[in-house]
Amino acid sequence: MQPSTIRTATYPAAIFAVYVAASMLLPAAVDLYYGNDDWEIFVVCSLATGAIALTIAAATRAPLTRGSTRSTFLVVVLLWLMLGLVGALPFYTASLKLDLAEAVFESVSAITTTGSTVISGLDNLPPGLLLWRSILQWIGGVGVVALGLFLLPLLKVGGFSYFRVESSDIENRPFERFISFLIALVGIYCLLTALCALAYAAAGMSNFDAVNHAMTTIATGGFSTHDASFGYFEGNAVLWVGTVFMLLAALPFSILVLFFARGRLDALRDPQIRLFLGYVTLIVTVLAVQRRITTGDPFDDILASTAFNFASIITTTGFASEDYTLWGPFAVTLAFFATFLGGCSGSTSGGIKAYRFLILGAMLRNGLRLLIHPHSVQALRYGKRIVDEEMQRSVVLFIVGFLASWVVATLLLSATGLDFLTSITGSLTALTNVGPGLGTTIGPAGNFVPLSDFAKWVLSATMLLGRLEILAVVVLLVPTFWRD
Amino acid sequence: MQPSTIRTATYPAAIFAVYVAASMLLPAAVDLYYGNDDWEIFVVCSLATGAIALTIAAATRAPLTRGSTRSTFLVVVLLWLMLGLVGALPFYTASLKLDLAEAVFESVSAITTTGSTVISGLDNLPPGLLLWRSILQWIGGVGVVALGLFLLPLLKVGGFSYFRVESSDIENRPFERFISFLIALVGIYCLLTALCALAYAAAGMSNFDAVNHAMTTIATGGFSTHDASFGYFEGNAVLWVGTVFMLLAALPFSILVLFFARGRLDALRDPQIRLFLGYVTLIVTVLAVQRRITTGDPFDDILASTAFNFASIITTTGFASEDYTLWGPFAVTLAFFATFLGGCSGSTSGGIKAYRFLILGAMLRNGLRLLIHPHSVQALRYGKRIVDEEMQRSVVLFIVGFLASWVVATLLLSATGLDFLTSITGSLTALTNVGPGLGTTIGPAGNFVPLSDFAKWVLSATMLLGRLEILAVVVLLVPTFWRD
Ligand SMILES: [K+]
Ligand SMILES: [K+]
Repeated sequence: MQPSTIRTATYPAAIFAVYVAASMLLPAAVDLYYGNDDWEIFVVCSLATGAIALTIAAATRAPLTRGSTRSTFLVVVLLWLMLGLVGALPFYTASLKLDLAEAVFESVSAITTTGSTVISGLDNLPPGLLLWRSILQWIGGVGVVALGLFLLPLLKVGGFSYFRVESSDIENRPFERFISFLIALVGIYCLLTALCALAYAAAGMSNFDAVNHAMTTIATGGFSTHDASFGYFEGNAVLWVGTVFMLLAALPFSILVLFFARGRLDALRDPQIRLFLGYVTLIVTVLAVQRRITTGDPFDDILASTAFNFASIITTTGFASEDYTLWGPFAVTLAFFATFLGGCSGSTSGGIKAYRFLILGAMLRNGLRLLIHPHSVQALRYGKRIVDEEMQRSVVLFIVGFLASWVVATLLLSATGLDFLTSITGSLTALTNVGPGLGTTIGPAGNFVPLSDFAKWVLSATMLLGRLEILAVVVLLVPTFWRD
Repeated sequence: MQPSTIRTATYPAAIFAVYVAASMLLPAAVDLYYGNDDWEIFVVCSLATGAIALTIAAATRAPLTRGSTRSTFLVVVLLWLMLGLVGALPFYTASLKLDLAEAVFESVSAITTTGSTVISGLDNLPPGLLLWRSILQWIGGVGVVALGLFLLPLLKVGGFSYFRVESSDIENRPFERFISFLIALVGIYCLLTALCALAYAAAGMSNFDAVNHAMTTIATGGFSTHDASFGYFEGNAVLWVGTVFMLLAALPFSILVLFFARGRLDALRDPQIRLFLGYVTLIVTVLAVQRRITTGDPFDDILASTAFNFASIITTTGFASEDYTLWGPFAVTLAFFATFLGGCSGSTSGGIKAYRFLILGAMLRNGLRLLIHPHSVQALRYGKRIVDEEMQRSVVLFIVGFLASWVVATLLLSATGLDFLTSITGSLTALTNVGPGLGTTIGPAGNFVPLSDFAKWVLSATMLLGRLEILAVVVLLVPTFWRD
């Protein structure tokens, strides 16, 4: 690979770092307003990051060209690495004094919208740091929507391109269409966040809590301003608000754009939406009924807590209103498998995602038919669309890469002496960007504080791997990637 | 499907049942010799089974024709169902008085060479019943070798056909070659069993124990004549004998035939053999070194117990010489993932198997290369052989079916109230035909006695599913299978 390619790929990360530096002034302002000394640290971080980012940007500036596939992979990975490191700066330098492994873990957990935390005592944390955590998740959320709609499909790594959604009129002034789509996308992301904050406030949250939780809900991030997460709040209203907005955030944003900005109802017919809402409904219903039968608690409470905590897992948000691992072995098993699922492609959610299950299901049906009638060749379909070989291959590659990464991360964690349950669910929840694992340490009632630094580095890498849909990172480890 | 097809497919099962009935006379003879009353029950079971089997055989007899793919699937499933039911008869009727779910579980666990047991107090069990368990595993073992070499590849469900191995001279008198191959296969199966029994006896086992354990070693079955399994025997010699013969039994028998009966060394170059021996060596070495560092016990004891217990898991035999789950979280995690691996195709072992990992690995490498250089089309290879689309599809289908079956079985088990660890590892060990799971109930120091009847039925079905490589059973659940 030419040095010029690496230089060109660095430029977008440097430019984006300038915006991230600017966003550090928000927590600075909040800390100044609340009289917390951390405001100075945020200002210094902001200026330092801005200066370095501008210098790098000036040094790597090059005429805008249509990049190669390889340089696009590099751009994506560098962007997320930059976000992770720049985001860690305030955690490392502020009054909290996290060490390097902890600061990077917290930042990577934020920007990958995973939401696992190594900070305990959130309730007493300065507001600036709390807001910084939420802002990082919110940026990470909109970043991953853009990634999933524009870049990953282009790289054949995953998901459906927005170009397919807009295919009918993309020929006509494509760049203008793209910019208007991008503006609508960011607009709807902001609109949903605002609506969610208003709804949370109406359901009883303080304004600060409402804004923070709205940002981490729409990002399906799961960071909270309280150690008890949603267990801090009273009543079912706040749980239902959370459930609705988590589900919305796990829908494809391309389709939300078509629906809200262009009034196109037909967009909702995407098969992955039906499957996603189908498995959420099925799991919540079965578990709520099982809990009702075994406990006899009021059904409205059971339904609200089941819907909230399991929508939270399936949309890969990771909020918890209580320790659902105490609901019995069936709930624990469901929580484990729900961690794999995820929402729709082009959303903020992680995991394997509904469209991959649809394609795997179609491959299974097709394969079984071919076993019975070996000569009945028939095309594979996703809704009315034909799924080509390339798409099928990318799904299989993802699953193989996903499982292999899970095994490697689990073995590394258990080699540090972590127990089996913490190891397999810690690596899993990192890879799917959900947040909580199982067991007493990292379960919904715990956090990642007790883990060793080595385990935190392993999990930071695993979260990035999961967020970039595995393959976008793994290609960089293939020697031929770097060869000319 | 025509009634005549079902009738024709029943015939082989009925004929085979006559042989199984005859084999019941062996435990009858042993019980008679040791003066145990069960001998009469074995004789009655034998006569009853023989009479019914002959009646059904007479009723379903039809001229030998080349069967359709669908009827072959039906033959395979009916054969294993028959074996499971006929094998259960002595457990249900003998002095032991197992109930129906237990008797079927024990029999299915035997004929699928899984080796999970619902009998505690093996040390005091009458010799006839102990021998019957071993005989069932031994029959199941040779059955699955034949299945894997002749039928599953024909059905495109898994593995390499023996016809490929023999391709150089198959054109010349194919039927005669087939029969001579079959005779050599059974001969080598018997020879290995005899050698194993002699080696066990030389290493200190009683003759009865040596014969029983030899049968269940070569079948990679794992039934023992003692509750403590290999923990009953003193010294490392018996562990090394077990390790060597388990590894031999997990090699492709087609290649053992070429090697032993025809002296062809080149047969050992099959890539799956290298991968299989490679991952056994890697896992045993890493774990033995880790155990040596953390405990300081004598290295020869550590190496013997690590090699034995982990070769036992990886070859899907399931013997245990001690409770390896007490070796720490790294050993537990390795044991969990080792349960997936399995040996070679065309062997008696279960699990995913080495050749599928080779094909998945080739697909991953190929796919990553295509992500980097989208137009570099290149054929997928297994050794020097090209892996066609059909083979790739069958591997992907298997993995999807395997994971889906695992999820369903786990959910069913945990719905009965079984804890998470028992549920996920119980279903897994049944699906891969290994034998022990993790946790205090079904771990290497436990057994399946405490499980509910429902859980036993679920596990019996899962063991059959796993033994018939999932797809051979699942096709029967597709409605089009039964349509004309
Ligand atoms: K999350
Ligand atoms: K076994």
